[in-house]
Amino acid sequence: MSAHWFNGVVGEGPIALDPRDRGLNLGDGLFETILAVNRVPLWANMHLARMQSAANELGIPFNRAAVDTGIAALLDRADDRHQVLRVTLTRGAGARGLAGTGAVPALLITCDAFDAGLMFQPAALLTSTIRRSPESPATRLKTLSYIDNIFAAREAAARAMDDALMLNTGDRLACSTIANIFLTKGRKLITPARDQGILTGVTRQALIAAAHHAGYDVEERAVKPAELYKADAVFLTNSLRLIRPVKSLDQQPLNMADLTLLADGLCETARMQCGRDPRLI
Amino acid sequence: MSAHWFNGVVGEGPIALDPRDRGLNLGDGLFETILAVNRVPLWANMHLARMQSAANELGIPFNRAAVDTGIAALLDRADDRHQVLRVTLTRGAGARGLAGTGAVPALLITCDAFDAGLMFQPAALLTSTIRRSPESPATRLKTLSYIDNIFAAREAAARAMDDALMLNTGDRLACSTIANIFLTKGRKLITPARDQGILTGVTRQALIAAAHHAGYDVEERAVKPAELYKADAVFLTNSLRLIRPVKSLDQQPLNMADLTLLADGLCETARMQCGRDPRLI
Repeated sequence: MSAHWFNGVVGEGPIALDPRDRGLNLGDGLFETILAVNRVPLWANMHLARMQSAANELGIPFNRAAVDTGIAALLDRADDRHQVLRVTLTRGAGARGLAGTGAVPALLITCDAFDAGLMFQPAALLTSTIRRSPESPATRLKTLSYIDNIFAAREAAARAMDDALMLNTGDRLACSTIANIFLTKGRKLITPARDQGILTGVTRQALIAAAHHAGYDVEERAVKPAELYKADAVFLTNSLRLIRPVKSLDQQPLNMADLTLLADGLCETARMQCGRDPRLI
Repeated sequence: MSAHWFNGVVGEGPIALDPRDRGLNLGDGLFETILAVNRVPLWANMHLARMQSAANELGIPFNRAAVDTGIAALLDRADDRHQVLRVTLTRGAGARGLAGTGAVPALLITCDAFDAGLMFQPAALLTSTIRRSPESPATRLKTLSYIDNIFAAREAAARAMDDALMLNTGDRLACSTIANIFLTKGRKLITPARDQGILTGVTRQALIAAAHHAGYDVEERAVKPAELYKADAVFLTNSLRLIRPVKSLDQQPLNMADLTLLADGLCETARMQCGRDPRLI
């Protein structure tokens, strides 16, 4: 059983939750998923700054110090395998009306050993029928309202694919259900811009920085799906799997140029922060 | 403190929830809000048929008999005021991956006294900046992923309005954050069709049936926002407030023709089922 920290207390097993909690009832909250390497939470400041910013926009009080305390308490108890920290902030219970004024937030952090064998595994993608609306908070912010992504992931799983590619309402690339998407063409790196219905990933930001450092020219812009077939390589980034090459889209094979240079750059920034390359398990 | 029924057991206070529950973590589940009048759950078959249908689409096992048992247990303990039953079905915990295969569902029902003074209260609406995408499961199904509606409700509350009017991605009327919308012109009743990014409300269906019975001509179609200003009356329907006249949109007053005939028809169907007119508190 995994360990958790809930509203200040470390425990295992179930949590005692108010049945009116708006995270449970309405997806009214936020989360972050953070990889811990060598018991150090990777890119934690970027993750928690994103949560702070989204909490401000949604009007949910956010206690950063409490999150830091909870993460430290859980990593203290963890072994030195890679761990997954999931930080969940809900607006809590006690509010009146859908707007949720006056609720008292709930904060849950869980810590589980991560199967590092999942990293860098190539993925077969299916294009989802669900389109992402760039203006929607459910699209822009990492909220608990994830049903569109779940629906898309189930479409992919039903066809034995690894993940779903989601387009935006303008039929341009957005992201997968759990990752951002990149294309390479020579030393050019292309990825959908912030206004394309993406969730702006922390690993996306770290990868862009690493790519600049490695001499890549980075283009953040609208990307047509057809460009995927002409790319040298297509890959996904997220906070746990880091880089995931895409081997096919809708059962059509894609080019798979070597990504070692980008992976080296990304893992070096991780190593500097955590004291261990995340590829060394 | 309100009473609840959670996975077969009646209780009060917190519930013991698996911290990995996908309702809490991902808005991965469904809900229904049912008014009980005279200890009889109003339009319960329509509510639970909708939940069954959505559960089938999302691949969440749904145990209708368990819901009936839970509702009966809670209404047995309730006094004879109007009650709000909230039925929450989550995909549960124990699944691998976003698709959620192999999870064991959780079923929560709460029962609280309803403030009947909220019924039939006129509303001032604000047009939300959030557009509803007709294809999105979060739009079509009554899922726990409600953040777009919450965001819209907060926009309205910040301007001291009662609710937000949501348009669809084609700039036609959809619904409010918690209700369907209707217009009358003489004996014509107009409401956005099912393909307009609405959640198809149970009270919407009951109101349409009552309107037909009362001699109204009902049009379900795409509706331009400008039509609201030319209507004899505009009103909202939902399962708790039943009918809510709209007095203004974006601070511009709307016509408010009398709705008694429609309210009588709707409440008569409720009286036949519950043995009491819901207006008699």
